[in-house]
Amino acid sequence: MTSFDLKNYLSAQRQKVDSALQAYIASFCPWKRLRDPVSYSLLAPGKRLRPVLCLSACSLVGGDENLAMPAACALEMIHTYSLIHDDLPALDNDDLRRGCPTCHKAFDEATAILTGDALLTMAFEVLSLDGPALPSDMAGRRLQVIGLLSRAAGCRGMIEGQARDLAYEGVSISQDALEEMHGLKTGAMISAAVASGAVMGGASTSEVERLDVFAQKIGLAFQVVDDILNVLGTPERLGKAVGTDMARRKNTYPALLGLEAAQQFARDLVNGALQALTLFDNKADPLRALARYIVERNR
Amino acid sequence: MTSFDLKNYLSAQRQKVDSALQAYIASFCPWKRLRDPVSYSLLAPGKRLRPVLCLSACSLVGGDENLAMPAACALEMIHTYSLIHDDLPALDNDDLRRGCPTCHKAFDEATAILTGDALLTMAFEVLSLDGPALPSDMAGRRLQVIGLLSRAAGCRGMIEGQARDLAYEGVSISQDALEEMHGLKTGAMISAAVASGAVMGGASTSEVERLDVFAQKIGLAFQVVDDILNVLGTPERLGKAVGTDMARRKNTYPALLGLEAAQQFARDLVNGALQALTLFDNKADPLRALARYIVERNR
Repeated sequence: MTSFDLKNYLSAQRQKVDSALQAYIASFCPWKRLRDPVSYSLLAPGKRLRPVLCLSACSLVGGDENLAMPAACALEMIHTYSLIHDDLPALDNDDLRRGCPTCHKAFDEATAILTGDALLTMAFEVLSLDGPALPSDMAGRRLQVIGLLSRAAGCRGMIEGQARDLAYEGVSISQDALEEMHGLKTGAMISAAVASGAVMGGASTSEVERLDVFAQKIGLAFQVVDDILNVLGTPERLGKAVGTDMARRKNTYPALLGLEAAQQFARDLVNGALQALTLFDNKADPLRALARYIVERNR
Repeated sequence: MTSFDLKNYLSAQRQKVDSALQAYIASFCPWKRLRDPVSYSLLAPGKRLRPVLCLSACSLVGGDENLAMPAACALEMIHTYSLIHDDLPALDNDDLRRGCPTCHKAFDEATAILTGDALLTMAFEVLSLDGPALPSDMAGRRLQVIGLLSRAAGCRGMIEGQARDLAYEGVSISQDALEEMHGLKTGAMISAAVASGAVMGGASTSEVERLDVFAQKIGLAFQVVDDILNVLGTPERLGKAVGTDMARRKNTYPALLGLEAAQQFARDLVNGALQALTLFDNKADPLRALARYIVERNR
């Protein structure tokens, strides 16, 4: 057993990430009319799971976490843009997110579309920053991370997952198809979070491969728990509506496997993820604690 | 006078760009349900002005045009995404684009939002391609181009321009404010097209600076002519509705200066653009011809 203090770790890491996000908004988004909805959405209270995974993976392989901060912030920008667009009336039509009105409710639909676009674009602006001044090995790593993130966010990743999710509404699908959909919709970006941190930290290929096994398992576990919380959670704690999956006849793990089997499945996935870390020393404790937190969380 | 054959040049360059775009779609967008709207929008007949400018700038500074092809395609992807999102009901609510129903009309609104997102993401995926295998100077140039494009497309560029355009509807603004808005909405991406081609071709700083003067002037001229065509053009030739600016009380050059003065203003801008090219030899003939084409076009 580890005595790693996850609560303090998470709060310290979130604070670092939020300061960096604030600084990026201030320099990249000067016009108040855009800056307001960008800040509103990006700085809303959230778990910052992807940035924290990215920073942890970077220091696990011996890298300086500051090198991974642009990637960590880019991940949160892409994640937030995807929430804003998914919440739009033409997609999931959600009113509540992170405990606050969704972007199109707090502002308007045109603003929400542009704010999502702005955040997606800003992610790549952040990653390209200081381009000409970077030493060539760091430029190469940044380019590799841009490749990881754009692929995970794109047509062979998150966007395909979102399109499948919409296409599957009200259609019965197999567990394999469900896993594939979630692997695209949520898993790809969680894997990219871990991989981009590792790459920025100068990981070896075999380190990246082992971390990828870890990331795939926690990515799926995260989604299974999300599905479970949509059944068992409360809107107060989750900051978003519950029971919506069933109402929309979405394909979920509790619906497919039953609630208890879904909970067991999540625990098995996390155990598998921990197995993938056995060759790492105590520098992997933050990742281990994050994996456990994913199944134990209630929001 | 030059005997440069623009018509043949444009048609050959467009063909090269369209083949490259097709190849990118085939490898980056495997799922038919997303590939169809992506192809529909990206391969719709268009001028391909930004890619052609990019390739011309690359060869003008002595670079191999193939090096600039990923940037040329990324520019067209970003341009197309911006058209898809601008045409949405919550923004300009347009039904016709490039002579065809807009993406949300041909498919549906959710698909149009995701297709725009997919194209914006794909632009950066294309630019990061072969990241780890690139020689380090090319990785540095690619990173610089990612910086140019993301900045031009983002909150200090196209998105701010689009947000201002919406904010200014029905409000009287000065010519300075109009120029600033267009500089952001259209000019920034045209400047980025020229600059990214030059950077990929290995241009010197002074070459990039001279080309930037050229690009800023043709960018503004392009917008002035667009405004004029919205008054004088026909929907058949333009492939989109006309008279819409006046109906929406948009700020335009014909409305602000009168039609004749607007035409003269466009011609003056192009003459200024040609002046910026005087130090270049006949390798600049394609750019010279493109500048003239911008004021003489009728679509």
